[in-house]
Amino acid sequence: MIILGIDPGLANTGWGVIETSGSRFRCVAYGCVTTEGALPLPARLARIHESLCDVVARYAPAEAAVENVYFSNNAKTAFATGQARGVAILAARDIPVGEYGPGEIKLAVVGAGDADKHQVQYMVRVLLGLQDEPKPDHAADALAAAICHANTRSRTTLVRAAL
Amino acid sequence: MIILGIDPGLANTGWGVIETSGSRFRCVAYGCVTTEGALPLPARLARIHESLCDVVARYAPAEAAVENVYFSNNAKTAFATGQARGVAILAARDIPVGEYGPGEIKLAVVGAGDADKHQVQYMVRVLLGLQDEPKPDHAADALAAAICHANTRSRTTLVRAAL
Repeated sequence: MIILGIDPGLANTGWGVIETSGSRFRCVAYGCVTTEGALPLPARLARIHESLCDVVARYAPAEAAVENVYFSNNAKTAFATGQARGVAILAARDIPVGEYGPGEIKLAVVGAGDADKHQVQYMVRVLLGLQDEPKPDHAADALAAAICHANTRSRTTLVRAAL
Repeated sequence: MIILGIDPGLANTGWGVIETSGSRFRCVAYGCVTTEGALPLPARLARIHESLCDVVARYAPAEAAVENVYFSNNAKTAFATGQARGVAILAARDIPVGEYGPGEIKLAVVGAGDADKHQVQYMVRVLLGLQDEPKPDHAADALAAAICHANTRSRTTLVRAAL
């Protein structure tokens, strides 16, 4: 099964595609869509949307995972990120999209909900059998979301099978 | 000139189309896209995006105006609204989009940046020569954004012409 992970942001939207087979993962591709602040907002949103539409068309993921971020103390940043997240999710509208909090993703990848960024990057590299840590961080975070989705998915399936 | 105003929100996205001719305005159409909370987020965002794409295709606005909302104390709401705003702006990606704060819109429509909601609705009705106040509020707010854009635009043009 092919899973697309997305780490949305107005300036940087990371994406990562993994393939799962049982409990094994393989990294298919990853990248980051950057948009400069000097561009008008509609152009920035269109670039994020179209780049992710290209990714969806190229890798044909069966499902997608997006980080569910809440900003407790910065509504302005939440608003900006929300706009990017909206057009990112729109690109995956035809497939099921799972939403995961930062703690859930860290727990799934590192085994601790309060793990630091470097630990997440390290474990993404190990779990996907990559030679180097995926760069930039946004791509690593997107791959982590995809791994979290794969784990949660198989766990849910197991629970269902046990009922 | 045809101007599209948008008041974005995840549950309710108001839209309004006006035609300007000199300092006169005419209401062309308005409406509100509602999405139920029970729908998955991708489906809600897709409905908002597609409905506004239909509006853009039908009325062919030359420019658009979107309210620029900041939520000082509720990042969660800001994040949800941001997602709706992202897909709304994406629908108007091929035309210039002006962003206006709530105070700017009230000032343009009522002459006071701290005017209340009823005053805005009343003046939208008067300025557009409508028999009744546009309902729901979201549609009235979208028409107010379009009027603000028309006023700001002509003022900008006048300033430019005077240079």
